[in-house]
Amino acid sequence: MRIDLNSDLGESYGSWSMGNDEQILPIVSSANIACGFHAGDPLHILKTLKQAAKLHINVGAHVSYPDLVGFGRRKMTLSYDELLADVLYQISALQGLAHVAGTRVSYVKPHGALYNTIATDLTQAQAVIDAILQFDADLTLVALAGSPLIDFAQKQGLTVVSEAFADRAYHDDGTLVSRREIGAVLHDAEIVAQRVLDMILKGGVESIEGNFTSIQADTICLHGDTMGAVQIAQIIRQKLEEQHIEVRAFTH
Amino acid sequence: MRIDLNSDLGESYGSWSMGNDEQILPIVSSANIACGFHAGDPLHILKTLKQAAKLHINVGAHVSYPDLVGFGRRKMTLSYDELLADVLYQISALQGLAHVAGTRVSYVKPHGALYNTIATDLTQAQAVIDAILQFDADLTLVALAGSPLIDFAQKQGLTVVSEAFADRAYHDDGTLVSRREIGAVLHDAEIVAQRVLDMILKGGVESIEGNFTSIQADTICLHGDTMGAVQIAQIIRQKLEEQHIEVRAFTH
Amino acid sequence: MRIDLNSDLGESYGSWSMGNDEQILPIVSSANIACGFHAGDPLHILKTLKQAAKLHINVGAHVSYPDLVGFGRRKMTLSYDELLADVLYQISALQGLAHVAGTRVSYVKPHGALYNTIATDLTQAQAVIDAILQFDADLTLVALAGSPLIDFAQKQGLTVVSEAFADRAYHDDGTLVSRREIGAVLHDAEIVAQRVLDMILKGGVESIEGNFTSIQADTICLHGDTMGAVQIAQIIRQKLEEQHIEVRAFTH
Amino acid sequence: MRIDLNSDLGESYGSWSMGNDEQILPIVSSANIACGFHAGDPLHILKTLKQAAKLHINVGAHVSYPDLVGFGRRKMTLSYDELLADVLYQISALQGLAHVAGTRVSYVKPHGALYNTIATDLTQAQAVIDAILQFDADLTLVALAGSPLIDFAQKQGLTVVSEAFADRAYHDDGTLVSRREIGAVLHDAEIVAQRVLDMILKGGVESIEGNFTSIQADTICLHGDTMGAVQIAQIIRQKLEEQHIEVRAFTH
Repeated sequence: MRIDLNSDLGESYGSWSMGNDEQILPIVSSANIACGFHAGDPLHILKTLKQAAKLHINVGAHVSYPDLVGFGRRKMTLSYDELLADVLYQISALQGLAHVAGTRVSYVKPHGALYNTIATDLTQAQAVIDAILQFDADLTLVALAGSPLIDFAQKQGLTVVSEAFADRAYHDDGTLVSRREIGAVLHDAEIVAQRVLDMILKGGVESIEGNFTSIQADTICLHGDTMGAVQIAQIIRQKLEEQHIEVRAFTH
Repeated sequence: MRIDLNSDLGESYGSWSMGNDEQILPIVSSANIACGFHAGDPLHILKTLKQAAKLHINVGAHVSYPDLVGFGRRKMTLSYDELLADVLYQISALQGLAHVAGTRVSYVKPHGALYNTIATDLTQAQAVIDAILQFDADLTLVALAGSPLIDFAQKQGLTVVSEAFADRAYHDDGTLVSRREIGAVLHDAEIVAQRVLDMILKGGVESIEGNFTSIQADTICLHGDTMGAVQIAQIIRQKLEEQHIEVRAFTH
Repeated sequence: MRIDLNSDLGESYGSWSMGNDEQILPIVSSANIACGFHAGDPLHILKTLKQAAKLHINVGAHVSYPDLVGFGRRKMTLSYDELLADVLYQISALQGLAHVAGTRVSYVKPHGALYNTIATDLTQAQAVIDAILQFDADLTLVALAGSPLIDFAQKQGLTVVSEAFADRAYHDDGTLVSRREIGAVLHDAEIVAQRVLDMILKGGVESIEGNFTSIQADTICLHGDTMGAVQIAQIIRQKLEEQHIEVRAFTH
Repeated sequence: MRIDLNSDLGESYGSWSMGNDEQILPIVSSANIACGFHAGDPLHILKTLKQAAKLHINVGAHVSYPDLVGFGRRKMTLSYDELLADVLYQISALQGLAHVAGTRVSYVKPHGALYNTIATDLTQAQAVIDAILQFDADLTLVALAGSPLIDFAQKQGLTVVSEAFADRAYHDDGTLVSRREIGAVLHDAEIVAQRVLDMILKGGVESIEGNFTSIQADTICLHGDTMGAVQIAQIIRQKLEEQHIEVRAFTH
């Protein structure tokens, strides 16, 4: 058995630090690296790519709406043409820097509000899909497990991997509990780690309503920027190894 | 005999237009395309690249300091690491978009204050040179004719082409007359065109001091964003053809 | 009889020009001046304020979402706190510059997507209203004629003026025809000018469906950035004067 | 005896945190608050102003070059007009937000590269001085102790206070040791605190060359964003109180 663990990296900007990249990188198998639109300046991006290259970690373009002050977390009504060009620009920048760092971008994971929007808004989704198809149809798309986007993108020839969240509560229907609701984010390392095991071994977790909900996950997102995040990630990694579940990038 | 004509293109930004790209593109042989740091948003850059691809025009990355409001015209004391990463990011973004547009970046021309600074500041120059060497050592560097940068870059293995300005006055020593001085910019189309011919046929022009000054130019920059710029460009192109001087990209 | 004419001004940014501020300013009675979030850098804002001060034209803060590349025309899901602070920052910056220019901000007109959003989205509207109330409750709010925002803001103590558009088609119910539909924008100067007269003299215009629709307008927006915009504005001004309708700022 | 202690505050930006504002604010008497050009988004600026208002701390505009990614630490060759307008915009924005927060801006402290540049570059200094004179001639300017700027600004009618740095080494001639040199920044809390006392009680400190150098300081800058910064600040404050030296804003 195997699973991919991914985390958002390269999100420092100028004099501002974010995350614990050096500690998280050895734990995960895939690195979603910021491209400069929600976070990441060229210097930090390049540094993160070099670290990922050194550790032979799978690299993805963490593309976003152009909203630095909002960290890409605010929905924007970009036109198809604008979004297509914005995604192309970001993948391009990251691929070129990855080349210099001695690695390459193998997947695209939309960030924040863009991620959530295209899970169901298929007009914006089409722009992201077309950007990938035009740039390099071999790039994988990371999409929210259970979302309409998965089938929509696969039908157009994209390889799609389903993503689940280790520290987020789910509803019976497999959708994420909104961050605005109580209990949406789990903070107990043991509980979070157990849910990761449940996703892999049982194919789902207990929903916030108290029932079993099926979660089909090819990759699981670990957060690296919150209190105790590194510790939670380490415990998850350790528990996976105890169960002889291999942590391996989806693309290898 | 042959000469390359280049112009700055793709400098529109969002709702703001600049230049007459569609009229200038068929006149020149090389297009310096903005990369988003001094001008150019992803949508306009992609559009310009597609136009250049259609006309089979040589494409260069017009890299700049990160200064949108100052249009890259203000010197900035970036560190070596910052400048290296900024240039890599810009070349990368343009190369990826060029790939999608069906063409490729073959040269790098620093823009504005960066162009002027690295003509003599060899610390900043080193960052630009290293960015090119690390990204693709086959990319050509466009540098100010007569500047120390040319020899400095060639010694490190870069192909360098010398650039002269059709509408700018020169001093006896081959340096440009500062834009702040009277007579620095020439506006008469006939005179500008004649100076282009003089550069090619006589290897120099009359300096502002009234003497002959030698200008070794592989490429001549035509401006496209000022009043009458397109007309001047057309007259230059026509006079070159009358003299059977081929307008051809330096890379072909 | 009297009417206010307003126009969007100060929208140049760095090396990019927009609009015909010097020609439009003498025609209108109110100037909506960009605050730097969708357009306008400090230098152009200050210059425009000085021109408005010299001509004794009523000055308003044209506040926007923070989206330079999108020119504030893309809806963003800002939180209440973010939007409140963004609007306060913009009014503050403009009021300080206006003070230096020898004039003062007397009203707030939200721009682009923010204008359209708060016409009906009363959560975002509340942030704009609270910003005005906290900064200076005597500032007037310019709102879309016939929109729910008008009553909503008045009930909270704000002075609100209703705005109509000279060159836009209206539906039977008084809402604007979307720019995406054919016939949404009118380009014939004579027709546009006649509709302005109809709004003032008859209290409405012919809708796109062919019926009379009531438009209650205290101020009419003239565009200054399109082809022929200045000419249309001049004709409207002339026709108003022929009818002895005074063009006067709503605040005087 | 009395002294003013100042610190740079409000430097968080969007999702990025910087500094320990809540812990530093009760220790200092003057708060240099970022204005959005090198750091500080409207929401964080407003929050910091409200905290300063609550604690009755003296508020200053920490104006900067427009360089977010460089944190205002890179010199830029802005024109006089550009710099004048940029400084006016920033003071204006902060003054308006301060008004809403229940306080007011009483001084201007240039940040980073602008601070260092205008200490000796009197052309750029003139733009900052004129911005203050035009906005409100009663605002105080904070300038590097011993710099030519002090006399230059005072002769034009500005109130100027001299600033020294608690944790920086000085040369014999009273200039700061460059950060690039070893020993430029002091990290030992006891030593730093003692140097603050020496500045106040002896009128100077030991230079890096080992001699006594005179430092005339009206205000002393405490850093809040480095490891142990809060602790150093607390020790300084405590030692001052033990010596019955009042910590009081220069404007009261």
